[in-house]
Amino acid sequence: MPEPNHPVPVHVVLEPTGRYAAVTPGSSILDAIRQAGVEIVAVCGGRGTCQTCIVQVLEGNPSPLSPEEKALFSEQHVVQVYRLACRSAIIIRTRVFIPSESLSAHLRLQVEGRGEDVQPDSPIKAVDVDIPPPNLQDLRSDETKLKETLEASGLRNTRISLPVLAEASLALRRLSWSVRAVIDRIGPEPRLVTVLPRETRVLGLAFDVGTTKLAGYLVDLVSGDIIARSGAVNPQVVFGDDVISRISYANEGEEQRRTLQFRLAATLNELVETLCREAAVERAQIADAVVVGNTAMHHLFAGLPVRPLGEAPYVPVVTDSIDAPAVDMGLHLAPGVNVHLPPNVAGYVGADHVAMLIASDAVAKGHTAIALDIGTNTEISLITERGIWSCSCASGPAFEGAHIENGMRAVRGAIERVGYRDGEFHVKTIGDCPPVGLCGSGILDAVSALRQAGLLDARGRFTGNDPRIHSANGRAEFVLVPESEAGHGKDVIVTRADVHEIQLAKAAIRSGIEILLAEADLGYDELDLVIVAGAFGTYLSLESAKRIGMFPPLPTDRFQQIGNAAGLGAVQLLLSETKRAAARRLARSIHYVELTTHAGFHDTYVESLLL
Amino acid sequence: MPEPNHPVPVHVVLEPTGRYAAVTPGSSILDAIRQAGVEIVAVCGGRGTCQTCIVQVLEGNPSPLSPEEKALFSEQHVVQVYRLACRSAIIIRTRVFIPSESLSAHLRLQVEGRGEDVQPDSPIKAVDVDIPPPNLQDLRSDETKLKETLEASGLRNTRISLPVLAEASLALRRLSWSVRAVIDRIGPEPRLVTVLPRETRVLGLAFDVGTTKLAGYLVDLVSGDIIARSGAVNPQVVFGDDVISRISYANEGEEQRRTLQFRLAATLNELVETLCREAAVERAQIADAVVVGNTAMHHLFAGLPVRPLGEAPYVPVVTDSIDAPAVDMGLHLAPGVNVHLPPNVAGYVGADHVAMLIASDAVAKGHTAIALDIGTNTEISLITERGIWSCSCASGPAFEGAHIENGMRAVRGAIERVGYRDGEFHVKTIGDCPPVGLCGSGILDAVSALRQAGLLDARGRFTGNDPRIHSANGRAEFVLVPESEAGHGKDVIVTRADVHEIQLAKAAIRSGIEILLAEADLGYDELDLVIVAGAFGTYLSLESAKRIGMFPPLPTDRFQQIGNAAGLGAVQLLLSETKRAAARRLARSIHYVELTTHAGFHDTYVESLLL
Repeated sequence: MPEPNHPVPVHVVLEPTGRYAAVTPGSSILDAIRQAGVEIVAVCGGRGTCQTCIVQVLEGNPSPLSPEEKALFSEQHVVQVYRLACRSAIIIRTRVFIPSESLSAHLRLQVEGRGEDVQPDSPIKAVDVDIPPPNLQDLRSDETKLKETLEASGLRNTRISLPVLAEASLALRRLSWSVRAVIDRIGPEPRLVTVLPRETRVLGLAFDVGTTKLAGYLVDLVSGDIIARSGAVNPQVVFGDDVISRISYANEGEEQRRTLQFRLAATLNELVETLCREAAVERAQIADAVVVGNTAMHHLFAGLPVRPLGEAPYVPVVTDSIDAPAVDMGLHLAPGVNVHLPPNVAGYVGADHVAMLIASDAVAKGHTAIALDIGTNTEISLITERGIWSCSCASGPAFEGAHIENGMRAVRGAIERVGYRDGEFHVKTIGDCPPVGLCGSGILDAVSALRQAGLLDARGRFTGNDPRIHSANGRAEFVLVPESEAGHGKDVIVTRADVHEIQLAKAAIRSGIEILLAEADLGYDELDLVIVAGAFGTYLSLESAKRIGMFPPLPTDRFQQIGNAAGLGAVQLLLSETKRAAARRLARSIHYVELTTHAGFHDTYVESLLL
Repeated sequence: MPEPNHPVPVHVVLEPTGRYAAVTPGSSILDAIRQAGVEIVAVCGGRGTCQTCIVQVLEGNPSPLSPEEKALFSEQHVVQVYRLACRSAIIIRTRVFIPSESLSAHLRLQVEGRGEDVQPDSPIKAVDVDIPPPNLQDLRSDETKLKETLEASGLRNTRISLPVLAEASLALRRLSWSVRAVIDRIGPEPRLVTVLPRETRVLGLAFDVGTTKLAGYLVDLVSGDIIARSGAVNPQVVFGDDVISRISYANEGEEQRRTLQFRLAATLNELVETLCREAAVERAQIADAVVVGNTAMHHLFAGLPVRPLGEAPYVPVVTDSIDAPAVDMGLHLAPGVNVHLPPNVAGYVGADHVAMLIASDAVAKGHTAIALDIGTNTEISLITERGIWSCSCASGPAFEGAHIENGMRAVRGAIERVGYRDGEFHVKTIGDCPPVGLCGSGILDAVSALRQAGLLDARGRFTGNDPRIHSANGRAEFVLVPESEAGHGKDVIVTRADVHEIQLAKAAIRSGIEILLAEADLGYDELDLVIVAGAFGTYLSLESAKRIGMFPPLPTDRFQQIGNAAGLGAVQLLLSETKRAAARRLARSIHYVELTTHAGFHDTYVESLLL
């Protein structure tokens, strides 16, 4: 009989994939799903508050229904054993079905973007050399000969780390002492990165590590050409959809933090594989890498604690740029490859925002501009001739479809556009199929259209006698698409609460813009340019955003939607030492404005809530 | 039924330990023993030539007897199923008994030694600092504050690696922002090693990695006191007793080389545990380390390929000193701790010899001296005012008791001294128990005593009619201890072949000395000092060594037996930046003499063969 202290693990089989996990009785279904490596949406990080991790239990009786589940599920749902994965403890062998809407696999990925061209100026140099093989008259060590040969090519005191030397020693013999030495010129002394066959093309890697999505670029370091690009879901989404849930999971313990780091590194390694396969090149040709992300993603990738980011006053562990061995971050590249991490500005203004500013080129061109990257957290910079002011505001997950009654990610069937003309609402879905919910740009449009139609007042309350406005359980809601036209046979609705979420989000962004303008003593009409970056920023309707007051009412031609500028900024930083120096200067020069303690923030925010 | 391509592993149980291994049928018993992690003597590295890996098969029939075994074992041995572990293939489940003489566990360890005192001058400095905690008026990152605080203490541009920063960030909060910062001043910029509670004692680690033995020292970096010392067997001995077998095993493949590295690192990590426990200190207090060894041990420890050391012209991968992260060599120390590896001179004159020269202080005192470390390979240096000449000679394993009919390691029961007086031979054993064989110093003495007794001629042939000289199977042998007085009931003998082994060994050493003297145009009578280091060098009888011509006939007071000088040299290099610089200058200035291709070597060698 098993010892009571060592309970026998029970099996959990996950459909439709057939994967399984063996877990300790009492573990939650969410634990089992994570353990099996299945990526499930869990916006709140498993705290029972977001209601996104819905599963159906096919066999095995889990723990009784939690209060959260009783409130959430209909009687029919209960009969069909729908459960929140995070609230259900496993008792016996269990078979679970994960509906596709609970899987976070098929997000719209974005690796495209516009960016100014950059003159390649990589710190990586290749030198083709012949090294004399050893003989009885020349007993110099491999290292001595390598260094002396490189010195003859003008590279004095080249540093060669032990792992690089170990590989170089083998490569020299394999390549008959005639090789391409790849050198990193960053730092006071040159550094040997790797030894390749002569005339091999030398490549670099740029990654944009978003909270939700990863974008990877493989780049020729000499021509500057992007030779492959690919995207993936950030595998950390299983542990919570937003930065805060991610930080709170990491803070549960060292093991949890390491798990987030390893999962991310593993997916990035797979991306490297994909990129190399696509471009028909060898991984060994990669000699440099740049990774950008928000401060939390930056810290998790770099193996730094994120506790300080989760506690007031939210200071980062590091702001300066970092050059460190790729192997320390779990990337499987040649042992001499370093990763360059551009500087962070603050706990919630990270290296990705710096990269975006670099890519947008607004600074270099002397524009007076607002540049913003909208997400759960929105980073905003005001660029002027007199300096740059930056802030971060908590715009919440509404624009990612979360906390919205019929909200969903930007996947097939999501309404991405809502228009209003002559009393009629028109919707457009991703994939042009029957609608099943609203993604971020859809809900933004919907609120704007409702306001345009006169069905919402400035405070966000439904108004008028439109038959499409219902009152259900004392909650007002607007039927945007009736069940007859919907893809899942249910009404697609917009609730008062949804409108409120959008008000909170847009107020946060608008008041961020206003506070920065006030700090610089500027009016919005003095702006030449409003640069809107990021996936949501690319797809949103500028007219809607202006109509509800998220953006200032400037002519549309002053707006620029630039796509994944952070990723293209990473490519530029990969290619150019000049750009890296510019990014360091830029980050150091930024006036960071902490909104939460800013005297004017509260009033501006309350005012900005109005539609 | 199993696929023919995937044979079912068979179990091998090892007595008397009860350990077991599951191996593929056809594997040798030696493979199984190694896989089970049991340390067996295998002098030749498993090639069937050394006859040291004798085991008894208790159950299960291995492959038929090999020619080597037929030649080695008596009929009775064959009946009792004695086998050479390396020559016996496993077919079915097998139970094997490993006699204690085949186990390499109980060697005489040496961590003592004499050395000149050194003025502590460590590159490691400790600074007690208070760092302002974050608040809303001070949002600087942890790293920025650390650097700025250190800069206020005179440490500009301190480098902080990612893993160190990760730990420091946690430590700053745990220690309420009042800490001892430990700094490494090697290199152009200071480097943060670790963050400790204020006023913690800062320690260093010195290791001498011998082919057979490891010696470890824990040192207070401020006072210079050795606060603990401990030794262990080099766990690589399972893979061959000498450097050549070790190199040939490593060259079988990357995995084999890694195995040697990991095994060594694991035992060094255990030694660190022992040292810390003994001194009642924390591993976290260790901030620096120095490791010395011969070039092969150096390379295997550092993770460098040893193929170039196994092929003419035997060049090392690196000769210069190395400072590299301890973690890269598998040592579990704080992430910022670097290991300093002093320089090598050549493929067979390593950093341990350099450390020995540093410890002996002969260079600094301006002596004209020979310094030598006797082992399977003997390194010899001639120190003069005009420079240092060094060479290495293959003195073979005879002084470790190998290749000697009744030879054995220096363990209990080994004859370590043989005297001759008035027609009688007197023996002294380690542990003063009945003799069972001869260790290195014993066989050296025995040959010297036989020569003294007139029973050997100058060419090493037995002479005279002494009744103790027998002829067995056409081979002449001398019964040193009759079976009635022996500990194992068998004669302890010295054969003509044994004498020949000693002639080869001493000729190699003497001709090395002569060649170096000739290179410097000196006669041996011009030597002030002959410094003899190493375990065997400490125990050997100088009189015997001079009598058989291994050493030049100088007055005994010109000889100095200094014990494990390499270990003490490592301690000195740990404590002193000045000594590290001296070691680098010394290694660079040495005139390395390659004996194998030296014009005068052959004649000198043949002449030195005479007793």
